[in-house]
Amino acid sequence: MKLSLLPEEKVFKDPVHDYIHVRKQFVWDLINTRAFQRLRRIKQMGTSDLTFHGAVHTRFAHSLGAYEVMRKLLNYLSRFWSDQPDDFVAVAYAAALLHDIGHGPFSHAFEKAIGSRHEEWTQRIIREDEEIAAILAELDPSLPDEVARVYDKTQPVRYPLIRQLIASQLDVDRMDYLLRDAVSTGVTYGRFELERMFRIMEPHWEDEGDVPTTIVLRPSGIHTVEQYLVARYFMFTQVYLHPNTIGSDVLLEKILRRARRLYREGRLSFVPRALVPFFRSDAPNRELTVSEYIALDETVLMAAFHEWQHEADPVLVDLSSRFLHRRLFQYVDFPGEEAVEEIKDALAREGLDPDAYLAVVRRDNKLFGDFSGVRVLVGGQPVDIVELSDIVHALRQQAKPIHKLYYPDDIPAVRDAVARWVARGE
Amino acid sequence: MKLSLLPEEKVFKDPVHDYIHVRKQFVWDLINTRAFQRLRRIKQMGTSDLTFHGAVHTRFAHSLGAYEVMRKLLNYLSRFWSDQPDDFVAVAYAAALLHDIGHGPFSHAFEKAIGSRHEEWTQRIIREDEEIAAILAELDPSLPDEVARVYDKTQPVRYPLIRQLIASQLDVDRMDYLLRDAVSTGVTYGRFELERMFRIMEPHWEDEGDVPTTIVLRPSGIHTVEQYLVARYFMFTQVYLHPNTIGSDVLLEKILRRARRLYREGRLSFVPRALVPFFRSDAPNRELTVSEYIALDETVLMAAFHEWQHEADPVLVDLSSRFLHRRLFQYVDFPGEEAVEEIKDALAREGLDPDAYLAVVRRDNKLFGDFSGVRVLVGGQPVDIVELSDIVHALRQQAKPIHKLYYPDDIPAVRDAVARWVARGE
Amino acid sequence: MKLSLLPEEKVFKDPVHDYIHVRKQFVWDLINTRAFQRLRRIKQMGTSDLTFHGAVHTRFAHSLGAYEVMRKLLNYLSRFWSDQPDDFVAVAYAAALLHDIGHGPFSHAFEKAIGSRHEEWTQRIIREDEEIAAILAELDPSLPDEVARVYDKTQPVRYPLIRQLIASQLDVDRMDYLLRDAVSTGVTYGRFELERMFRIMEPHWEDEGDVPTTIVLRPSGIHTVEQYLVARYFMFTQVYLHPNTIGSDVLLEKILRRARRLYREGRLSFVPRALVPFFRSDAPNRELTVSEYIALDETVLMAAFHEWQHEADPVLVDLSSRFLHRRLFQYVDFPGEEAVEEIKDALAREGLDPDAYLAVVRRDNKLFGDFSGVRVLVGGQPVDIVELSDIVHALRQQAKPIHKLYYPDDIPAVRDAVARWVARGE
Amino acid sequence: MKLSLLPEEKVFKDPVHDYIHVRKQFVWDLINTRAFQRLRRIKQMGTSDLTFHGAVHTRFAHSLGAYEVMRKLLNYLSRFWSDQPDDFVAVAYAAALLHDIGHGPFSHAFEKAIGSRHEEWTQRIIREDEEIAAILAELDPSLPDEVARVYDKTQPVRYPLIRQLIASQLDVDRMDYLLRDAVSTGVTYGRFELERMFRIMEPHWEDEGDVPTTIVLRPSGIHTVEQYLVARYFMFTQVYLHPNTIGSDVLLEKILRRARRLYREGRLSFVPRALVPFFRSDAPNRELTVSEYIALDETVLMAAFHEWQHEADPVLVDLSSRFLHRRLFQYVDFPGEEAVEEIKDALAREGLDPDAYLAVVRRDNKLFGDFSGVRVLVGGQPVDIVELSDIVHALRQQAKPIHKLYYPDDIPAVRDAVARWVARGE
Repeated sequence: MKLSLLPEEKVFKDPVHDYIHVRKQFVWDLINTRAFQRLRRIKQMGTSDLTFHGAVHTRFAHSLGAYEVMRKLLNYLSRFWSDQPDDFVAVAYAAALLHDIGHGPFSHAFEKAIGSRHEEWTQRIIREDEEIAAILAELDPSLPDEVARVYDKTQPVRYPLIRQLIASQLDVDRMDYLLRDAVSTGVTYGRFELERMFRIMEPHWEDEGDVPTTIVLRPSGIHTVEQYLVARYFMFTQVYLHPNTIGSDVLLEKILRRARRLYREGRLSFVPRALVPFFRSDAPNRELTVSEYIALDETVLMAAFHEWQHEADPVLVDLSSRFLHRRLFQYVDFPGEEAVEEIKDALAREGLDPDAYLAVVRRDNKLFGDFSGVRVLVGGQPVDIVELSDIVHALRQQAKPIHKLYYPDDIPAVRDAVARWVARGE
Repeated sequence: MKLSLLPEEKVFKDPVHDYIHVRKQFVWDLINTRAFQRLRRIKQMGTSDLTFHGAVHTRFAHSLGAYEVMRKLLNYLSRFWSDQPDDFVAVAYAAALLHDIGHGPFSHAFEKAIGSRHEEWTQRIIREDEEIAAILAELDPSLPDEVARVYDKTQPVRYPLIRQLIASQLDVDRMDYLLRDAVSTGVTYGRFELERMFRIMEPHWEDEGDVPTTIVLRPSGIHTVEQYLVARYFMFTQVYLHPNTIGSDVLLEKILRRARRLYREGRLSFVPRALVPFFRSDAPNRELTVSEYIALDETVLMAAFHEWQHEADPVLVDLSSRFLHRRLFQYVDFPGEEAVEEIKDALAREGLDPDAYLAVVRRDNKLFGDFSGVRVLVGGQPVDIVELSDIVHALRQQAKPIHKLYYPDDIPAVRDAVARWVARGE
Repeated sequence: MKLSLLPEEKVFKDPVHDYIHVRKQFVWDLINTRAFQRLRRIKQMGTSDLTFHGAVHTRFAHSLGAYEVMRKLLNYLSRFWSDQPDDFVAVAYAAALLHDIGHGPFSHAFEKAIGSRHEEWTQRIIREDEEIAAILAELDPSLPDEVARVYDKTQPVRYPLIRQLIASQLDVDRMDYLLRDAVSTGVTYGRFELERMFRIMEPHWEDEGDVPTTIVLRPSGIHTVEQYLVARYFMFTQVYLHPNTIGSDVLLEKILRRARRLYREGRLSFVPRALVPFFRSDAPNRELTVSEYIALDETVLMAAFHEWQHEADPVLVDLSSRFLHRRLFQYVDFPGEEAVEEIKDALAREGLDPDAYLAVVRRDNKLFGDFSGVRVLVGGQPVDIVELSDIVHALRQQAKPIHKLYYPDDIPAVRDAVARWVARGE
Repeated sequence: MKLSLLPEEKVFKDPVHDYIHVRKQFVWDLINTRAFQRLRRIKQMGTSDLTFHGAVHTRFAHSLGAYEVMRKLLNYLSRFWSDQPDDFVAVAYAAALLHDIGHGPFSHAFEKAIGSRHEEWTQRIIREDEEIAAILAELDPSLPDEVARVYDKTQPVRYPLIRQLIASQLDVDRMDYLLRDAVSTGVTYGRFELERMFRIMEPHWEDEGDVPTTIVLRPSGIHTVEQYLVARYFMFTQVYLHPNTIGSDVLLEKILRRARRLYREGRLSFVPRALVPFFRSDAPNRELTVSEYIALDETVLMAAFHEWQHEADPVLVDLSSRFLHRRLFQYVDFPGEEAVEEIKDALAREGLDPDAYLAVVRRDNKLFGDFSGVRVLVGGQPVDIVELSDIVHALRQQAKPIHKLYYPDDIPAVRDAVARWVARGE
């Protein structure tokens, strides 16, 4: 495989990395595909912009950023290991650039409502999208499969190092999004020293191959990686899991479930063309084609919410309007099953469907308590960071599960019912 | 008038000003109106994100920012003049917060295609929107009118100072957007010293009133304001007038003109509910209601472009697809009328409508050559900055008019016709 | 007491706070005293600039910064408590501005060698310096004493709140130096959200007085204060306790001890006038006058090292030259007493005094494991942060003691002796 | 010539460039010489820190920065021209790193008082310093001469490109100091897009050689270089030529002239060893040895000012005390010769020597009106930027000459005499 160069390097001006540099022709070609351009219309942080108004940056920007982190990191690694084969570089660049290509609109809330899974779509798009698969296959017929397998941990890969750099706790995905989300929202929490992270990473061989199998951290870099993991912890607790963002996700999921039900019952008058296959299918990951899948983005959903304000179903009208005009549900710490039943009764007495207006949210503490793949070389042997750092150990302890009740506090009877239970609990 | 305070100050985390502070109840209420929340779905920089991928920040963010600049500036001015009456503060805050409330989707390109004017809508919304007008009128029945008149330079206002701070070359609008657009795109051009700008501004009385009539600059601040004006110049030449952004605006305008024509001819199968009044009317500013106007935003248009990829009209299909997948027109310096005719012929021979595929763009040099309202106190008398600073004088000279031809360079016959003319010109 | 204002606010341009604002006349007067101007010639980070070349900022800058943090914080607190009495403000501003006024050159290393203690000098200067004491006493005769007592935890104070803001883990000193040291060195570790820190701080009354007695943190601010404490932890482990900085401190201390010994033995030909009282006295804190004390600064010591390169004593010549030309000692983890004895022998065989060329450094883990005064309001009661945050708890565990041996590795016999022991230890 | 590499890359943490990277052994060796380490004790901005308290960064930091800019720039140029010969790289790196090696303490004020010229010392140190010359000569015996000649525009050089990158308006010196001085002082004026500057620079051959002879700018980069030149303009007008900084330079020069006169008249009791040769000589550049020259730094002078507060000469006592305690001279626009005579009389009546207490300062407008070497490629031909950009043209017009009178305004008779003339002038 020989990766041809662009006549002249292309750059993208970027608020995080200053410039994103593209010299390989195939990278440029991948960026210009429809499937990749579609990421311009999917926000990186889903509904978070309803809480942090700066959080409107896109998965397009983040995907370029993840690629740029990979490019810079391989450049650093070339100090230890300079003869990086072209097929290694091709898989690494493509896997970084395309790691989010399968994301749907408002990722998690949409997936929960519809039952699709972006990880599988990422693989399907890489293997099946007529533009993307062709660009990769032209370099080497096995390349689409090679790239797609990077994301599937059940499959062996030729270069385990790439999988680590794409899908571990120390991957180019996190390194870009922590910085980017911090810059966009305006918080300092997510900042860490990216170049110093590169400097403490060292290639490590666990076999006789030409290509190292893993990255380990130098012992001198423990505090640097602590800073990175602490940044991640703060971004999760302060930004990603902000209760208002959970609330806007709840609302979105309720809208989609309601609209799909109405559609299936023949009671929805407007449905955007691109949404039809999703509403019709019980197994979208299996049943939809790639081109059906990538036809959908957040602008289509948002415009549907506009139209749904004019449907006959008052619940869909109300929920859609709430989302557009940001009248989010309120929340309390979970008050117990008995309380929930009583609040449901209050809703029912108002003629409101509890399925549409009440949500109990649980999130366990696995979200940022995972430190897999972060290993430090101690006496020639990679050792898990958790065993070496009390802070990292504490981060794991710290991760408290979330258990909350979301409800509309602009309905007096509901608000009062909640208030009674909260008062009793104190 | 007595402005009541929120029980507790509210803040918005902001990438430009760190925090945006809201203490007055009416400011909070204005933010929570439908008309204001709609600004979350209108990007500040229109189609610029197709050139600078970071430029996806919204008019919602910018409007909060303009308010915050006003708040900080009045705070600074209180050193010279501490008894700012509540009605002055109310007009100033509202006029800053709402100055963009009348913007439509993709402002300038949409307005050109449809014939609406956001300046008038801003005034109408403030006077007529049931939420906004009510919030203001509750403070004082004349307040909606007082605020609206700030933007209409043909009308007298009670506080000319506020008009200067809202709509001169030294206004809170520009002070926020230069910084915000610079931060989002990642360029340094738009940076200037905001706090130092405040420090060089001094209230000035041209009559006997309680409230100063104008802001003048201290002589020691000439270089500070030079820096600000230079920042503005660079943002225009390097960012706002980027030829690719003009190209994406051209494409957008072509789509809308085509779709409207098809609609009127009964040949458009899909049109979003919110767009209908705009397509139907020849004078939207006069004929539409405020609630019809604010029902439209960028998500509705984007979703329409999706649907229009499936229309019968091949031109609309092609243009919509170009916009979504970022296959923009190419450009050359205007090659002369004769060349344009020849290129039109080439298009016609391909069966392509020149109206849909060719655009001549002219922009004069008034865009950033205006320095009205920027006056420095010299010997007790306000003097125009242009008379004092050679650099500012040069900025005016520098402003070159733009004259370009946009065309699709992926159509070989067209590309060749252009190339021939360019070759001849050299 | 009535604090008079300057005719016009003065500002200092500052890399951390943008501007430092001075409106009170007495603050301006304090800044212009000799004792305060002397802080321009004492670096904030001692010898750290030999490791981080940017770390040359002064205690003058930091003292202005601590004052500015106090000013901003009181401004924030005025939301809860607006009638701050002038004498409270006077003590608070003066105590912040002057908290480092007693620092000598290269603080800790100098103090160890000479036996002076800056905390006491701070109090003495405030009470005795003819300029500073007069400025304060003119406001109120008891003010010098009131300010000085803030730093002496054995004494009662009128406003315990001020003591907390000056000398707890949550004080204006730390809030400025973490940011300032981070900016100067170029690391990101010390960054935290200063304005958000202010926003989570609330005045709390433990008695009936007009002035709150303490600051507590709002429960919503736990993560913010975690970020601040983590920043502190990283600055200590990565910057302040950098082994090379400990090494340059060791060298400095050795030079001063040697020179003082030579001086007392009548064997030192050059001693700067300002250093004489320090060399002569065994109890400088008791025996020196304030004007003798403030006559010394880092430029005087540095110039002495220049001259001492020409002394008769070869040890002083060599050590002085090492410091000036940055030929620092090398270090290893403490290899045990037996090893030290053997290395001493190696030195002795080279004719080198082990007292001058060998140093065992121990630092316990109390330096950044203290969280006194950081309390969160839980159910109306202040609770120690350590009991609420696992991360903070872990920071305490994490703090490892330092135990190292410093030695000159450019002397082959010594280097070899160390290498032998290190090899044996592995 | 073969440039050997360090076993492992060394880095310096830097507030401007994040990291400064050193891989070549000879660069590391040059940094560790006495002459280079001495730059730690010479501030980059002379006495500017008396006006901008952050401006205490050193010529050591700036020299590393200029080297880093050169390193990055050559890296960029390798896109056009990858086979950069080792001797070219050696001259380029050394010339960047050592370009300020000849600077004395408080450069310009000291040079004016003493009559030394740093440009010549830079060349002498490179040719004669036993450490530096040896490191370079070991690579190639002609290298010291080759490097030194870069700075001497009267001499031919092997690589004219390097001279342009070291000593034109577009050199690595300016590119580092504008950014560094902006960061240290906290102003935004000096910021420009360094990486974008690299991107618009292109190597250009004016002969048949292997190495390009000059750098030209791409036409698309005009606005980028305008931004850089505007940054330079603002730094000069707002920072470097701040009237207080000129005032502190005036004071410094007066002290040194007075002390030298006293020394020559046998009336100075203390003179630091390192200053003796400078005071004794009328032609220090010719008469001093390199080791005499590099023995002096700012700490030596500052310590001398301390001692001189105890001299018999009351003028030297007073001037030294003024400098240490920052009681600077005040200034007015030059009031005319007649006024100066009258003010001299007022001084004389107070028994004060006008030579010591009065200064007329003139600076012409050449300081930032020079744009040599900034050329843009237009139609294959390099064209001066001044001919292409109205802004740059205006910068030249803008540069106003300075003409001011400095005097002590704490002496009532002098202050009154000045005030009378100023009043008359209005």
